[in-house]
Amino acid sequence: MNQKYKKEDILEAGGALIRKQGYHNTGINDLLKTCNIPKGSFYNFFKSKEDFAVKLIEFYGIKMLSFIENILQDQTLSPLQRIKKFYTQLIDFNAQEGWTSGCLVNNMMSEVGSLSPKLGEASDKVFWIWVETIAKCIKEGQNLGEIGTKYSSIELAEYLHTSIYGGLTRVKASKNAAPLKLIYKISMHTLSA
Amino acid sequence: MNQKYKKEDILEAGGALIRKQGYHNTGINDLLKTCNIPKGSFYNFFKSKEDFAVKLIEFYGIKMLSFIENILQDQTLSPLQRIKKFYTQLIDFNAQEGWTSGCLVNNMMSEVGSLSPKLGEASDKVFWIWVETIAKCIKEGQNLGEIGTKYSSIELAEYLHTSIYGGLTRVKASKNAAPLKLIYKISMHTLSA
Repeated sequence: MNQKYKKEDILEAGGALIRKQGYHNTGINDLLKTCNIPKGSFYNFFKSKEDFAVKLIEFYGIKMLSFIENILQDQTLSPLQRIKKFYTQLIDFNAQEGWTSGCLVNNMMSEVGSLSPKLGEASDKVFWIWVETIAKCIKEGQNLGEIGTKYSSIELAEYLHTSIYGGLTRVKASKNAAPLKLIYKISMHTLSA
Repeated sequence: MNQKYKKEDILEAGGALIRKQGYHNTGINDLLKTCNIPKGSFYNFFKSKEDFAVKLIEFYGIKMLSFIENILQDQTLSPLQRIKKFYTQLIDFNAQEGWTSGCLVNNMMSEVGSLSPKLGEASDKVFWIWVETIAKCIKEGQNLGEIGTKYSSIELAEYLHTSIYGGLTRVKASKNAAPLKLIYKISMHTLSA
């Protein structure tokens, strides 16, 4: 068992790099340098760059899920208030970064979602777990009458997260928050309708 | 003047490759092989791979604009019918491709929109021209009362195209039309509301 290097540390540091500069733009040597780890040790943990990326998507998925649940299960706020708080924080976080990186899973879906079945499948799985978690909160809001029932909670969650991700992609090029805030505003109106 | 190779042919063939497999995943040698052109001739037309990509985004932008205008200026259909026809064709085209490639500009925004200011700017500019064109048709629909006026035509166009692009990214990983068709359905309802 390799005690000197921790898998989580490699996923954390390497993941930040891939989230910022992309999958194909990041070579194994970039990962080794950023994670300050010898090649042999890296391959003790991961079979290949693709294998690293699969594990990274899962790691990021769990971390993000914890962030989502932390807000969406907060019983001191109404379900719609929680949804709004979650997306506002997501937007603010990306704004603070200067729209440089976006969401790792959204980036992966775009760059390699179709090229690599393994990475596409891992991204889809994580996205779906998030959507189910968001849908639970939407369902609560629907039961309370503060979120509309024209669409199911799963449909609204899928619509909301996919649209916001469209905005996250868009602001990487526009370099201002306007398109993303517009998506947020209109999709929140759709939820309330 | 180099007569043997046409700039448009290089942009067409090289563009299809980059749209499918990404910017960083496509090297100069891949472009030369696909376009069947010697390196020297390629550099007669383009200063660098980045320069090629800027020209490609502009080329793709004009081609797509012609496709958009062809549908959105069709006076035999109502403005809302034209909008629906345009997005239905966009979705069908991507379905026929098996969700492999998506939109070049959307892909570029995601992969290099922030990494390369030149590519981000070129993508943003093209996106904006499309949005203005879609907005004109929405404005017509608003004047006729078949599209709502809660949001401006520009806002609705930006919302619509950005959301649909979120769906185009999503289906690269989901490999089925459901998320994209859902975005289409809900955003069309937003327009009518």
